[in-house]
Amino acid sequence: MRAVSLERLQLQHEVDQLNAAYASALDEKRFDAWPEFFVEDGRYTLQARENFDRGLPLALMDLESRGMMKDRVYGITQTIYHGPYYTRHVISPAQILGVEGDLVKVQANYAVFRTKPAGVSEVYNVGRYIDEIVRTPEGLKFRSRLCVYDSEMILNSLIYPV
Amino acid sequence: MRAVSLERLQLQHEVDQLNAAYASALDEKRFDAWPEFFVEDGRYTLQARENFDRGLPLALMDLESRGMMKDRVYGITQTIYHGPYYTRHVISPAQILGVEGDLVKVQANYAVFRTKPAGVSEVYNVGRYIDEIVRTPEGLKFRSRLCVYDSEMILNSLIYPV
Amino acid sequence: MRAVSLERLQLQHEVDQLNAAYASALDEKRFDAWPEFFVEDGRYTLQARENFDRGLPLALMDLESRGMMKDRVYGITQTIYHGPYYTRHVISPAQILGVEGDLVKVQANYAVFRTKPAGVSEVYNVGRYIDEIVRTPEGLKFRSRLCVYDSEMILNSLIYPV
Repeated sequence: MRAVSLERLQLQHEVDQLNAAYASALDEKRFDAWPEFFVEDGRYTLQARENFDRGLPLALMDLESRGMMKDRVYGITQTIYHGPYYTRHVISPAQILGVEGDLVKVQANYAVFRTKPAGVSEVYNVGRYIDEIVRTPEGLKFRSRLCVYDSEMILNSLIYPV
Repeated sequence: MRAVSLERLQLQHEVDQLNAAYASALDEKRFDAWPEFFVEDGRYTLQARENFDRGLPLALMDLESRGMMKDRVYGITQTIYHGPYYTRHVISPAQILGVEGDLVKVQANYAVFRTKPAGVSEVYNVGRYIDEIVRTPEGLKFRSRLCVYDSEMILNSLIYPV
Repeated sequence: MRAVSLERLQLQHEVDQLNAAYASALDEKRFDAWPEFFVEDGRYTLQARENFDRGLPLALMDLESRGMMKDRVYGITQTIYHGPYYTRHVISPAQILGVEGDLVKVQANYAVFRTKPAGVSEVYNVGRYIDEIVRTPEGLKFRSRLCVYDSEMILNSLIYPV
């Protein structure tokens, strides 16, 4: 039996805090903070599980840099006409899959709930974050975050990132 | 890069265990245990996000001492006529926002599911706990727990604390 | 005040990782991996809260060895006619209830969401895992996992383990 190292406990803590901060930024609609969770050439992909499982490339969102994410945020906040809604992320403790030098591979299950004005809260999008995380001078950041969602029929259109 | 201290890991653990014990007391309907999670002059507030975001004071529940909480528990268990239901809390790992001497500021996203007899489980109330926690001889306790819920339209009336 | 020991932090980490790996195996439909989370004479029980609370023995599933679990997996994958669906587990950080020698008693709240092809995601089964965990040369394993679910009216039939 190999004891869990202090380094591993620290890493687990940092990853869970990263997920909590990420959720908090989105749920509080601080969308400008969202691209900052990624490295400059980071990638954000939102893909249906059906496509992921079959190795098909089609994704609902696939943003290949922080610049593209900022563009998406501009769209959300300035140009895309949509009915507003609240989101609420509940994320399980992350599962650390591997550490290769500076790169940490993790995954975590998530449920996002949506609430429209004067409405009840609904299950909106559930799935799994599959992440590559790197350490930077400003702390852990996503090199890539792939959200594989089970929910094939998305309630209305999905506007905000998950 | 600053390593996470052992003290911080211990604190994170204690906060998550506090949330788990709190959820467990409510979900198992051990309501008498609920005020004991707070200090004597602790505060429990349940407020709609819409009001919280606008700085409006109106709250669905606002109990300013353990005594008021005990009164509420008496109401739940003895006097308020209501159809019984089960609750089930799923709480994300907490996000530690700051430590100031004895005071710890944290927040955590939660989802509460409700099940009525012979019914399916439903999303009941989702939101964010915003907490001030202090250390006492009996362990961590809430000086204040503010539940900011997204769910503006609450399924039937909300009887039990969240 | 007694500080949390490093051993306790390590144990908490291991238990949460066990739950994450368990969820991952089921959600990814790697059902063959499921019995391996238990010791050879481990027990898996899925019981309605109503029966659990009253001390009644009736359970929806009660498998008393890894062999019975393998049989169930064979049923799921080969013989039980059912419409396929995805599951997604979101599990709170576990609450460690006690450590007695090699035996660890823990519980954790869970929510399982179900998604049918081309359907929206729904709350499927919520409840509490009540576990007895032992340390083996291959890591932590369940001596028993009792899933006490709130959801008395189960959406369609429950095919996969929770």
